[in-house]
Amino acid sequence: MVSISVVGGTGYTGGELLRIALAHPRFEVRCVTSRSKAGTPVAEVWPQLRGRLDLEFAEPDVTHLAESDLVFFATPNGTAMEVVPELLSKGVKVVDLSADFRLKSSDEWKRWYGREHACPELLDGAVYGLPEVSREAIRTADLVANPGCYPTAIVLGVLPLLKRGIIDAGDIIADAKSGVSGAGRGASVGNLFGEVSENFHAYGVSGHRHHPEIVQSLSGLTNDPVGLTFVPHLLPMFRGMQATIYARILDRKVDIEAVLTEYYEDHPFVAVDKSGSHPETKSVLGTNLCRIAVHRVLAGTRVVIISIIDNLTKGAAGQAVQNANLMFGLEEGLGLKAIALRP
Amino acid sequence: MVSISVVGGTGYTGGELLRIALAHPRFEVRCVTSRSKAGTPVAEVWPQLRGRLDLEFAEPDVTHLAESDLVFFATPNGTAMEVVPELLSKGVKVVDLSADFRLKSSDEWKRWYGREHACPELLDGAVYGLPEVSREAIRTADLVANPGCYPTAIVLGVLPLLKRGIIDAGDIIADAKSGVSGAGRGASVGNLFGEVSENFHAYGVSGHRHHPEIVQSLSGLTNDPVGLTFVPHLLPMFRGMQATIYARILDRKVDIEAVLTEYYEDHPFVAVDKSGSHPETKSVLGTNLCRIAVHRVLAGTRVVIISIIDNLTKGAAGQAVQNANLMFGLEEGLGLKAIALRP
Amino acid sequence: MVSISVVGGTGYTGGELLRIALAHPRFEVRCVTSRSKAGTPVAEVWPQLRGRLDLEFAEPDVTHLAESDLVFFATPNGTAMEVVPELLSKGVKVVDLSADFRLKSSDEWKRWYGREHACPELLDGAVYGLPEVSREAIRTADLVANPGCYPTAIVLGVLPLLKRGIIDAGDIIADAKSGVSGAGRGASVGNLFGEVSENFHAYGVSGHRHHPEIVQSLSGLTNDPVGLTFVPHLLPMFRGMQATIYARILDRKVDIEAVLTEYYEDHPFVAVDKSGSHPETKSVLGTNLCRIAVHRVLAGTRVVIISIIDNLTKGAAGQAVQNANLMFGLEEGLGLKAIALRP
Amino acid sequence: MVSISVVGGTGYTGGELLRIALAHPRFEVRCVTSRSKAGTPVAEVWPQLRGRLDLEFAEPDVTHLAESDLVFFATPNGTAMEVVPELLSKGVKVVDLSADFRLKSSDEWKRWYGREHACPELLDGAVYGLPEVSREAIRTADLVANPGCYPTAIVLGVLPLLKRGIIDAGDIIADAKSGVSGAGRGASVGNLFGEVSENFHAYGVSGHRHHPEIVQSLSGLTNDPVGLTFVPHLLPMFRGMQATIYARILDRKVDIEAVLTEYYEDHPFVAVDKSGSHPETKSVLGTNLCRIAVHRVLAGTRVVIISIIDNLTKGAAGQAVQNANLMFGLEEGLGLKAIALRP
Repeated sequence: MVSISVVGGTGYTGGELLRIALAHPRFEVRCVTSRSKAGTPVAEVWPQLRGRLDLEFAEPDVTHLAESDLVFFATPNGTAMEVVPELLSKGVKVVDLSADFRLKSSDEWKRWYGREHACPELLDGAVYGLPEVSREAIRTADLVANPGCYPTAIVLGVLPLLKRGIIDAGDIIADAKSGVSGAGRGASVGNLFGEVSENFHAYGVSGHRHHPEIVQSLSGLTNDPVGLTFVPHLLPMFRGMQATIYARILDRKVDIEAVLTEYYEDHPFVAVDKSGSHPETKSVLGTNLCRIAVHRVLAGTRVVIISIIDNLTKGAAGQAVQNANLMFGLEEGLGLKAIALRP
Repeated sequence: MVSISVVGGTGYTGGELLRIALAHPRFEVRCVTSRSKAGTPVAEVWPQLRGRLDLEFAEPDVTHLAESDLVFFATPNGTAMEVVPELLSKGVKVVDLSADFRLKSSDEWKRWYGREHACPELLDGAVYGLPEVSREAIRTADLVANPGCYPTAIVLGVLPLLKRGIIDAGDIIADAKSGVSGAGRGASVGNLFGEVSENFHAYGVSGHRHHPEIVQSLSGLTNDPVGLTFVPHLLPMFRGMQATIYARILDRKVDIEAVLTEYYEDHPFVAVDKSGSHPETKSVLGTNLCRIAVHRVLAGTRVVIISIIDNLTKGAAGQAVQNANLMFGLEEGLGLKAIALRP
Repeated sequence: MVSISVVGGTGYTGGELLRIALAHPRFEVRCVTSRSKAGTPVAEVWPQLRGRLDLEFAEPDVTHLAESDLVFFATPNGTAMEVVPELLSKGVKVVDLSADFRLKSSDEWKRWYGREHACPELLDGAVYGLPEVSREAIRTADLVANPGCYPTAIVLGVLPLLKRGIIDAGDIIADAKSGVSGAGRGASVGNLFGEVSENFHAYGVSGHRHHPEIVQSLSGLTNDPVGLTFVPHLLPMFRGMQATIYARILDRKVDIEAVLTEYYEDHPFVAVDKSGSHPETKSVLGTNLCRIAVHRVLAGTRVVIISIIDNLTKGAAGQAVQNANLMFGLEEGLGLKAIALRP
Repeated sequence: MVSISVVGGTGYTGGELLRIALAHPRFEVRCVTSRSKAGTPVAEVWPQLRGRLDLEFAEPDVTHLAESDLVFFATPNGTAMEVVPELLSKGVKVVDLSADFRLKSSDEWKRWYGREHACPELLDGAVYGLPEVSREAIRTADLVANPGCYPTAIVLGVLPLLKRGIIDAGDIIADAKSGVSGAGRGASVGNLFGEVSENFHAYGVSGHRHHPEIVQSLSGLTNDPVGLTFVPHLLPMFRGMQATIYARILDRKVDIEAVLTEYYEDHPFVAVDKSGSHPETKSVLGTNLCRIAVHRVLAGTRVVIISIIDNLTKGAAGQAVQNANLMFGLEEGLGLKAIALRP
């Protein structure tokens, strides 16, 4: 068994991680922390865990956490970087679901997150945990930076096409739509039912923190300069994300669906749908799947790529478990095989 | 023209009040206050008012407010009672949408609201603003306590039956369901989209602040002791409320629908649907209407009364304007005639 | 392995059954039928099953169905009764999720379902599949009538109290609220998003088909005549049901919570929450759990019982699998242990 | 007074038209037709109209319809063209909310709508009713083809920029998202609450009927060939639409916001928000407003245009009334001034 701890267990990502971890055949949940709820039974905050987890939230304490084989951070940005160096030095492995170790440049990090990075020396060694890109590196990593939800959906959508030079890296448009769970469980007016329900709007067009993360990932797949227009929108729903990606086709003789299908053949969590189809987010609800479909438009000169995930699962907690499986030599899909809750 | 001010203009009730007041042919909005947003254009907080209201939120200031003919309070409980005495003394009329002046007993008020009432001497003179009960008293009132949403729906449902002794006052069950807008626009985890959407639960079964308010109202309609079981529930929707009321029929020969229809004949905002029908909340969306239907069950011994309103309109801001119309000698329904936003 | 077939696999209940059956460690899905979709891959209608089920919908054919150990009927009322006799005669066990075998009286059945019953001689032997009432009878049954969703929630809420004579059987009020999935996947205006969303109403107050089913079940638990007022409502959500039940307490010295807790101790799918709590439907989303909480009101003379389930799971497909487990000597909870999809 | 009739009054567009028409100070509703509901009181299908409209649905009958000054068609495609010639010959004016008269080419019409056009000779003279483009032509038109919802949002977003040659006509991407009300009130599985709620997907990427309509409109604004990528998506909400439009900027010195603001200065139903803002659909709920905001991205080389409308109002019934006002010499905004139902 792999003993795990979750730092930050009261948010949506933490809750989803617990849901998955408690059903995982090789994980043992040792400790779940929360500063604000320390001493409260976890099952009081998350009634769905009654009878499944008999722990109270603990204060985050490095010594205590270091008794686990693996620590997941499901914390706000800026928290993990304060604790991770000590955990690593004690031989604990870490999967950080926040943004602390996603960017390679500490300057870039500072620009987007508004403060100095606490351990810039770790950025280089942290492995960006998108298994479809870096599966082998993840297997031997001690510190995995779990990707953001938008980057996951967008990068998986263009990955094989960019790698093979089939689309123009300099002009990629990603029009992305996310359920509100991505915004977390913090009390805020903008995420109230009355603001989100029967409503729709874009946000962060002038600059979203996932922009540099996506550009960094795409740049790793091509030698050409990457030009990305990224517009996120908030959907009046809780879980689910779609990126609709528009790109110019460079090599028009290629069978794009075939390229995607071939690339993802040995990746259990990416499914390529028949070209021309419109996958729906509910078909991956609660699962670690990314579903992709492509359409050629404008006389075949441009491709529209649809990429859907559950932002809390493949976009966060599920992918974190997928990474953890790889880090501990387990089967990549262990504990991640539930069928989507559809109907 | 009646010049009005709104104290507390950033909440859902305040926003609804502005929506109605700005379309009212005889109201002129002079001042809208908000402590937290003072100096911000109202239309920045409420984009639907762009081009309709060119005011900034003001600090609440009695001298300034006293320049209006009428002040509406759309504030949290406990705020109005600090300011109302001075406003009244300056000859300003007041409609308080909070609970400060709803209960007649200051002891009862203290028990439910957790502090001493600031001006218990005003409680007696404040008129409880349910026009279907007290239209004449409202016409001459200086201070109207606007009823809560649950009390409005429930009292209107049983009013003629209780008055005429047709149902047993000692055993009334009100199973009520409300859209989340009733909980206000304050940032709270419980009202996040992720908590309310695709979810349902009761709350406050052991004691809800509207309980004494309903009992007080019902007690005014009968000489018998009132026994009320009141269970409120939160609906995964924004606007709309239904009370499903269960009562024992004392006089089984009465045509209940006819009694209701007759009573409400000259009340423009209560519509009695055909007996046996199931009115839907969306049919009153954004309107000041209460729609009632009755069903006789258990071999005719018991009546089920369905009473629906839009909790923000007839349950709050619309009824406040209805009261204001009466207080200023205007037609009762002025500014309240829009058709429900259905579809 | 138990080989199973599902008759009627395109509806919500059928889809939920497939979701559960495919993850069940001892079930093997042999055949899924649909008249309208015969020949279409199941995974085309249900994309969440891609890669999990490589079958096409088959025409319903008794010979073919009879090759399974167990046939589930997830069909409209009136279908199962045409086929079940032949299946039973061939030694196949049946769990019928429709209403065909729920009522003991064929006259009563005719009155509510509008036609003659096709095999009234089977009604007596069919076991009403509420394991918390009839677990032992289910173990040896060949034909199980799977309970309706409302009856499940309501009967479980009052079962121990009625059996022990603690509440008045003659005056039970069940105010029930259901997500729209209970209405099935048939195309109908009333179940369109535009009709259900941001809307709420009661229905069937004058007579709902689950009324006689509930009365029959309650009557089996007491010698006193049962008087039931049952008012169902439609919630603007997809899955989830709450019954709020009001009953008069006969024996006021009893600790009601203790009675419930004790009764359900060895029933893995009923959880009794702390007295005074308000369980939320989302805490059982996608699970076979029924969660119950009680409140005493009106000076302790009346009890309010809250009973929640997922109407598609404990209210339909999950309970069907629970019954099947019992019928085949498997552990009662096999394949039913997923944690609720919350967050 | 202008006497009007509505052909097709049971759908969402017809219902919205009635809501607006009944509050219009100069309209008198004479006749509302429905083949399926003939003889039924309109207020039975639309309870929000009780007390407002005392008509029964009539069979559509040209002689009867010809007694009105103006007939609105809120019918499925292919219906209006069978009746309109006769109405016009009798001197009745027509606003057709369906697609029958939107395309100028009868071949194109046949290709997209799958049958011969019944009166191709009228296509040339029909005025495409986007007042922001053709206000003067509408004033004198007898037959107005009311634009589709997507075309309205998209054309208004790029209109001044395309006319002034500021953006590249050959490469416009419109990623559009619509509430489900645009799909009408017909019973269909795809529009059930259970399919739409908590779900998101694109549709019609390979070809949507609004594509040729948009291209035709854009082509009228520029001499350059138009290249349009149009991807519609279905939002889990009822009313509201956003088009997020991506275009290459040709003239980088232009102040795009200023161009838009200037163009729309004398158009009462287009509001240009501050550059860089993210208007929300709820801010135009139930109104005839289109709200536009622009963002420059990719080092200022590309513009992202956000254009929002209520698809049932400015995207259908509201715009129809705006057109009717112009056709009858009334003030353009008469009857269209309600504030959005927000909160």
